[in-house]
Amino acid sequence: MATVDTDDTRGRLIAAGKVNGTTVYDATGGRIGSIYDVMLEKSSGKADYAIMSFGGFLGIGERYHPLPWNQLKYDTDLGGYVVNLDRERLEGAPTFAEDELAGWDDYRSNDIDTYYGNEPRYDLGTVGVGGLRDPIVR
Amino acid sequence: MATVDTDDTRGRLIAAGKVNGTTVYDATGGRIGSIYDVMLEKSSGKADYAIMSFGGFLGIGERYHPLPWNQLKYDTDLGGYVVNLDRERLEGAPTFAEDELAGWDDYRSNDIDTYYGNEPRYDLGTVGVGGLRDPIVR
Repeated sequence: MATVDTDDTRGRLIAAGKVNGTTVYDATGGRIGSIYDVMLEKSSGKADYAIMSFGGFLGIGERYHPLPWNQLKYDTDLGGYVVNLDRERLEGAPTFAEDELAGWDDYRSNDIDTYYGNEPRYDLGTVGVGGLRDPIVR
Repeated sequence: MATVDTDDTRGRLIAAGKVNGTTVYDATGGRIGSIYDVMLEKSSGKADYAIMSFGGFLGIGERYHPLPWNQLKYDTDLGGYVVNLDRERLEGAPTFAEDELAGWDDYRSNDIDTYYGNEPRYDLGTVGVGGLRDPIVR
């Protein structure tokens, strides 16, 4: 792992291996959790989802909340990401145990986008039942 | 770290924490190294640079080569990234020891982009000498 100093929030870039652990704040600046990992699109390198860990704060134990990246706003003063979502919204969101994070597919992406009010990004309507998934990117 | 199965190359997404170690191939499909880490732009989540580790293969020991992300092409058949650069080009590229990867700034970004034939992405011409760097994004 790169030894990029995670306490140095001045830079424009951050090593992906060090995004994990970046603090997440609510809209009032209260600390609500941290980033556990980021789901990147392999080809473009674009971060599509941040997987948040709220620990025990919301009383949900070791469940992980993937959020569409556009729900996160980096705040250079706070040195972390701000999520403008209320507690109820987060508590009702799709969550996963650690071992469920594997096997991420386009259906999961669509579910998450839909929950947070984004347009589902994949057209899965033409997928054959039981066949290999080969969704069409919108 | 997420337990996403790195051997499963079928998915469209990959956990940032697991991009590390993804194999990098040359244009002929030969294995030349692996990805050590990825530099993300904090605000957009866009991968700007991949830090490659070539190990002992090129005889350069533990030096790390940041490449602009647009130099990498993900090949789903190979399950890794292909870099269309010859050996001479890579050997002459900017490299860093592990502890030098910290302190990444816009000057370094520009140097790397320039070496690989990209337009430097930051306009650093107006930065005051000795002052805090506050570059203008093109």
